[in-house]
Amino acid sequence: MNTGRIYGVGLGPGAQDLLSVRADRLVRGAAHVAYFRKAGRNGQARAIVEGMLRADVTEFAMEYPVTTEIPLSDPRYNKALAGFYADCTAHLRALAGAGSDVVVLCEGDPFFYGSFMHLYTRLKDTTPIEVVPGITGMSGAWTATGAPFTWGDDVLSVVMGTLPEDTLADRIAHTDALVVMKIGRNLPKVKRALQTAGRLRDAWIVEYAQMPGQRVRRLADVEEVTPYFSIVLIHGQGRRP
Amino acid sequence: MNTGRIYGVGLGPGAQDLLSVRADRLVRGAAHVAYFRKAGRNGQARAIVEGMLRADVTEFAMEYPVTTEIPLSDPRYNKALAGFYADCTAHLRALAGAGSDVVVLCEGDPFFYGSFMHLYTRLKDTTPIEVVPGITGMSGAWTATGAPFTWGDDVLSVVMGTLPEDTLADRIAHTDALVVMKIGRNLPKVKRALQTAGRLRDAWIVEYAQMPGQRVRRLADVEEVTPYFSIVLIHGQGRRP
Ligand SMILES: C[S@@+](CC[C@H](N)C(=O)[O-])C[C@H]1O[C@@H](n2cnc3c(N)ncnc32)[C@H](O)[C@@H]1O
Ligand SMILES: C[S@@+](CC[C@H](N)C(=O)[O-])C[C@H]1O[C@@H](n2cnc3c(N)ncnc32)[C@H](O)[C@@H]1O
Repeated sequence: MNTGRIYGVGLGPGAQDLLSVRADRLVRGAAHVAYFRKAGRNGQARAIVEGMLRADVTEFAMEYPVTTEIPLSDPRYNKALAGFYADCTAHLRALAGAGSDVVVLCEGDPFFYGSFMHLYTRLKDTTPIEVVPGITGMSGAWTATGAPFTWGDDVLSVVMGTLPEDTLADRIAHTDALVVMKIGRNLPKVKRALQTAGRLRDAWIVEYAQMPGQRVRRLADVEEVTPYFSIVLIHGQGRRP
Repeated sequence: MNTGRIYGVGLGPGAQDLLSVRADRLVRGAAHVAYFRKAGRNGQARAIVEGMLRADVTEFAMEYPVTTEIPLSDPRYNKALAGFYADCTAHLRALAGAGSDVVVLCEGDPFFYGSFMHLYTRLKDTTPIEVVPGITGMSGAWTATGAPFTWGDDVLSVVMGTLPEDTLADRIAHTDALVVMKIGRNLPKVKRALQTAGRLRDAWIVEYAQMPGQRVRRLADVEEVTPYFSIVLIHGQGRRP
């Protein structure tokens, strides 16, 4: 019997016809799919492929064990996650060992801040594994603004809203174009950092880019908390003839 | 008669099955396609879709008027380019005015350092125009290295090899993950900047990512000049349980 193969498949930002042709073929043909989700949620990656899966598909939902109860700095957080990834890996390795291919559904591009990377590093030396790049959430977001994003010699900085406020402010002050991901409850901090850097009025926020519920607004006009699937952007203003 | 529509279609890094399903449908159905190329070359965007176009397609090759003879700093450079973009725009607007849809073929993602943006800003107020995001060249490149690219709180800086050496060295010294695009004849300068920043040994170079001729090497091992379609990368080393 042949060993199966694990595919980390980038689904793009959300619209089904923004999957690549290769990803579309793998997802529709899969006998086994796996995806991460928060306990009690459907999972964004799974939602993107709704209606595309085979009727007889076997699904493996990988539910994160940790939520907001344990702070990131707590060593128990890392320990719980490491155990979780080890369990997921064992299951995927067993499936591949039994001859099954498995398509792991990944939002955006798998190697760009993706949870799949934790499986990939644990599997790659023992199990055939292949990655299909995808359109990133940030490409989906800047396209949604209807304005070109980076020009000429522009420097682009991509930062996470989870960084400390002073680090964020410093980064924002020293870049041309900007992407901030992992917003959610970090939004007030991100706004303060933009204000400190003098760039709040240049910033846009895109919620659910290329998904149902997409919304594009100037960040300065937004007061409420935004969803986890939000991206803050500042467009570059580089050289243009 | 209805006005036609201009589509700026991201083709992704190079492989035909890395076009999105939406891009694939638009490209295969197009009666008119347009694309940039250097005089005397086929053009990379056109090469990607070889064999996909309708037999009766009308092609509009937009040939850059300026090459290496005029330095970027010369005002004639900007003037020549501005005239060129105005001519291209006039032709596309006329096609749309006559009721034709036109698919503009764009490497990677159209709004990410793309020449299409110069057409977009000139057309958007007069002509129906739509953008289809694509997988960027850098996603194609980091996927080709076989190692996950950005983790946890990593800061990613994307810079162009056309920047001055000291600017490059400074940026490279102050980031976690790094992407350098527009390499070509800038390679020796980029290597010196990496050396100054103490990070040359962490750098990879990917030529023709996801295209025939793809090549992945440690940058320190590369002596010769590399093609325009090259990307230099340093992987992030962020938090991972
Ligand atoms: C763990 S990262 C995964 C990124 C993904 N691998 C990619 O390539 O875009 C999750 C963050 O991506 C961003 N994101 C991804 N897709 C998005 C979309 N369609 N709309 C808005 N934000 C998105 C959000 O900022 C979210 O907090
Ligand atoms: C004018 S920019 C266009 C970028 C494109 N819009 C994108 O999204 O990747 C041209 C630069 O993109 C990079 N590039 C784009 N696609 C590439 C590929 N498949 N392989 C290597 N480099 C690529 C090279 O650094 C090249 O100099």
